Amino acid sequence: MKDKKVRHAVGIDFGGTSIKMGLVNERGEIKAKRKFNTSEAPSQEAWLDSVSKNIELMFKEVPSAEATFAGIGVGVPGFVDFDRGFVYNLTNVPGWTAVPLVQLLEKRFGKIARVDNDVNAMALGECTFGAGRAYQNAVFVTLGTGVGGGILLNNNLFRGAYSMAGEIGHVSIDMNGVKSPTGKGGLEQYIGNRQIVERAVRLMNEGRKSIIKEMAKEASDDITPKLIEQAARKGDALALEIFDYVADCLATVFASVTYLIQPQAFIVGGGVAQAGKFLFEPLQQHLKERLSPYFSEHIVVKTAELGNDAGMIGSATLVFME
Amino acid sequence: MKDKKVRHAVGIDFGGTSIKMGLVNERGEIKAKRKFNTSEAPSQEAWLDSVSKNIELMFKEVPSAEATFAGIGVGVPGFVDFDRGFVYNLTNVPGWTAVPLVQLLEKRFGKIARVDNDVNAMALGECTFGAGRAYQNAVFVTLGTGVGGGILLNNNLFRGAYSMAGEIGHVSIDMNGVKSPTGKGGLEQYIGNRQIVERAVRLMNEGRKSIIKEMAKEASDDITPKLIEQAARKGDALALEIFDYVADCLATVFASVTYLIQPQAFIVGGGVAQAGKFLFEPLQQHLKERLSPYFSEHIVVKTAELGNDAGMIGSATLVFME
Repeated sequence: MKDKKVRHAVGIDFGGTSIKMGLVNERGEIKAKRKFNTSEAPSQEAWLDSVSKNIELMFKEVPSAEATFAGIGVGVPGFVDFDRGFVYNLTNVPGWTAVPLVQLLEKRFGKIARVDNDVNAMALGECTFGAGRAYQNAVFVTLGTGVGGGILLNNNLFRGAYSMAGEIGHVSIDMNGVKSPTGKGGLEQYIGNRQIVERAVRLMNEGRKSIIKEMAKEASDDITPKLIEQAARKGDALALEIFDYVADCLATVFASVTYLIQPQAFIVGGGVAQAGKFLFEPLQQHLKERLSPYFSEHIVVKTAELGNDAGMIGSATLVFME
Repeated sequence: MKDKKVRHAVGIDFGGTSIKMGLVNERGEIKAKRKFNTSEAPSQEAWLDSVSKNIELMFKEVPSAEATFAGIGVGVPGFVDFDRGFVYNLTNVPGWTAVPLVQLLEKRFGKIARVDNDVNAMALGECTFGAGRAYQNAVFVTLGTGVGGGILLNNNLFRGAYSMAGEIGHVSIDMNGVKSPTGKGGLEQYIGNRQIVERAVRLMNEGRKSIIKEMAKEASDDITPKLIEQAARKGDALALEIFDYVADCLATVFASVTYLIQPQAFIVGGGVAQAGKFLFEPLQQHLKERLSPYFSEHIVVKTAELGNDAGMIGSATLVFME
């Protein structure tokens, strides 16, 4: 009976490969999950149909949630105007340019709808129900193919003047560094998944000894950050050095961000964050070296806690924030 | 008669050399000014006495202001807890450690008092009544011995979780760069006044031709950023190159700040900003190179407008914000 007053929202993690849907309550708990392939819904109409069908299936699973259904939140991989509920463009999903998604959802379901970029949604999830729940001001970073970020100020996502703030992966760590369409020396040009692997390969080609190569051969697999992490667990010096380097790049940006906006905490998620102590111990140490005591004593660095659920939970949270 | 409803506040720009006081109205206009030497008030008691005496003199000058006197704001050169109205320490003023300044002022004058660091006060002044008055989200930067900054979000100073945000001079432009107590590669290690001069001297010692040296000799003066600016006006290639370099360092940080918090505008003040087009033209150009189009098309860079009055006007504004 108690749950009757707890609202529910559907959080949709819109990925390039699959669409993950969660029926989430106001405590951040996922009560039901559904998933379909992005390719199965090639048009916006087909996507809305699939979403609708899966919402019905989740309500069948959790009938009590229907009466407290507050709305739908979506985290998308691309550029969004949050205030207008408008999708400019999705990076890896054809057919999603200039879509008034909030309008389409509200018309279809008669409930509140919200859309934000996927990293903002994850940041909101982690900072409301995950590793950042104790903090009002936190910066979330996710390490993957790219390096994404989201900023929470006063428990709210901070979107900047034109809805695109939080692009921590483009913060420069070297004014004369690697060129890209977003500038020179941007963080993700050094610690994106591909760049981490390229660094390992380059150092081995330069003659550095490491077990990474034979581990990849044994596993008949490419070298990946995961494999470098496994080598680090076995004490491989090169693998440890690579995580130390990744940590120092990250510490450079965390120090700059701290001097600039002084959050309470950094929450780090994504694949490379799975490396645990191999990443976080040097990260803490380098961050301390890079901050004056007054700044370093206050700052907290934590691993994200919600894993793959962060997007669904955070997208649902967009609805609860209203 | 109309002015009767317009409140007045006293804004105090507390410098290491002199204390500048302004009687400021809510429109940001200075109606009277006073000044005394910091060394003339060696104790807190003597400082309060001098402030009191000068407030009386300003009210004699503008008698109508006394009835609308709202309070006193102070910008100090050092570390402050704004919320507690507490001065931790002033960098170049002995005897000002752990001072509950707001409490002392409120007890003495029976009016609202506020204290903030001097750069925050300048930022507030510029962004309320100066070059930033059209923007709700702006970043103020002052170029001098050090590089200071203040961030305005939603027309309010943003102080971060522990009252010390906005230290833009410590943002790193090179993770392996110049070491200092605040990290590695901090912006002010490259474009502080002394560092600019050292760069000019080093390049001339390395054999670069320039009129800077003989200009200094003729003027019987040290090489200063001002003198390098004068050489730039005469078309000196080295002087122009130095401003281009300063602009590129600044653009690196402005790009990082834009990716992170996406303000509407940067407002640049301080001595080096007087170089006008020699600084701002390359700054605009480098910033554009360092930002993707969506970010670069929105961002504005402007010269500060209030000059030496920014501190007084901004300190008074701290009172009006209440």
